[in-house]
Amino acid sequence: MATQRRAVVLLSGGLDSTTVLAIAVREGFEAYALSFRYGQRHTVELDAARRVAEALGAARHVIADIDLTVFGGSALTDNSIAVPHHDSVDDLTADIPVTYVPARNTVFLSFALAWAETLGASDVFIGVNALDYSGYPDCRPEYIAAYEQMANLATKAGVEGRRHLKIHTPLIQLTKAETIRLGRDLGVDYALTHSCYDPVDGRACGSCASCLLRARGFTELGLTDPALAPAG
Amino acid sequence: MATQRRAVVLLSGGLDSTTVLAIAVREGFEAYALSFRYGQRHTVELDAARRVAEALGAARHVIADIDLTVFGGSALTDNSIAVPHHDSVDDLTADIPVTYVPARNTVFLSFALAWAETLGASDVFIGVNALDYSGYPDCRPEYIAAYEQMANLATKAGVEGRRHLKIHTPLIQLTKAETIRLGRDLGVDYALTHSCYDPVDGRACGSCASCLLRARGFTELGLTDPALAPAG
Repeated sequence: MATQRRAVVLLSGGLDSTTVLAIAVREGFEAYALSFRYGQRHTVELDAARRVAEALGAARHVIADIDLTVFGGSALTDNSIAVPHHDSVDDLTADIPVTYVPARNTVFLSFALAWAETLGASDVFIGVNALDYSGYPDCRPEYIAAYEQMANLATKAGVEGRRHLKIHTPLIQLTKAETIRLGRDLGVDYALTHSCYDPVDGRACGSCASCLLRARGFTELGLTDPALAPAG
Repeated sequence: MATQRRAVVLLSGGLDSTTVLAIAVREGFEAYALSFRYGQRHTVELDAARRVAEALGAARHVIADIDLTVFGGSALTDNSIAVPHHDSVDDLTADIPVTYVPARNTVFLSFALAWAETLGASDVFIGVNALDYSGYPDCRPEYIAAYEQMANLATKAGVEGRRHLKIHTPLIQLTKAETIRLGRDLGVDYALTHSCYDPVDGRACGSCASCLLRARGFTELGLTDPALAPAG
């Protein structure tokens, strides 16, 4: 039996990263799921990440502690900046929102790179999306390509020519509805996931950008987002 | 009076990064010194970083907590791997040593990038050296160039064309002796610094790669490394 290839999968516990984990597993990778406790307000998402990693059969799930609150500058890590709420998804603009965390994906990918090197893995999966998150600079294909190039100069394995690190971004050109359809085909239970920027008592608010984009995806498929279903 | 430009300076408290901080200050930057508590055995270096930041007049000094121990793989973060000791600097080889921390500079630069974006800074200083540390992939000029390119695609300011992030590596082609001479010209007190990988009771061991390379630099200048002077 061939040894299963290992991949590091960045897992927030949200809709996108959960779908990505399902894709990595389906592609035959032994998945090492990586989450972060980075000072975000909504640690409820880490509970979702734990549930999802277990449900989808990750080989291991690590939550790394990193401290982004020392820098501030985002509504997700700085309590003095409020998360915006909107009446409708049509009210979202293409501007970079205050929920943008400076250099977050760069930091997350750097940890994934460190773990990949330790594991002897050549593959990293990240659920960035260039359509719904056009306002986030670190979700674009040209950014990912530049990161991959840098990463292959950064590591022992890259320098020794033993491995070429590949960053997989299977959702980068998908709409939210396409992502949800793909995930459902792979058997993902989205009731386990959590995407809300500003949950109340652990429940999705329904009116932040993340909730609105996600709900629209389900609506386009004639479905209801299970995260917004009434508490049972 | 013109507003002073801000720079983030990665500061371990060792000889190289201390010299780099002195250079940034001399070049007229308002220096924001950044250190990490990353699970390294020798937290004594953080005390050195604090002393150095104060002595050289950093505008602010932040120690960010990050957890690299969850990945292991280096003698500096994994207690099951011993730091090598050598009789002489001639015993060091060009191989990548076990003290290499996977993707460490990539992780450190990512945090520097996050802080730079929050501060509105366009400049990051790092004390990498391609000569003494030829075995570390993430100390080479081609790595730094690739990182800079990636960073300019990663951030709000880069995307909006407001800023071009520059990574300064003033020591990259200097020998240790040249670095020490430069630092002494800038008034650096190397007695404040700490470079040892494996200190005993807070004192430099004198026989790890870091101690040996540093001591040779002082010797070449006809000096004695103050870190190896008998306790006063």
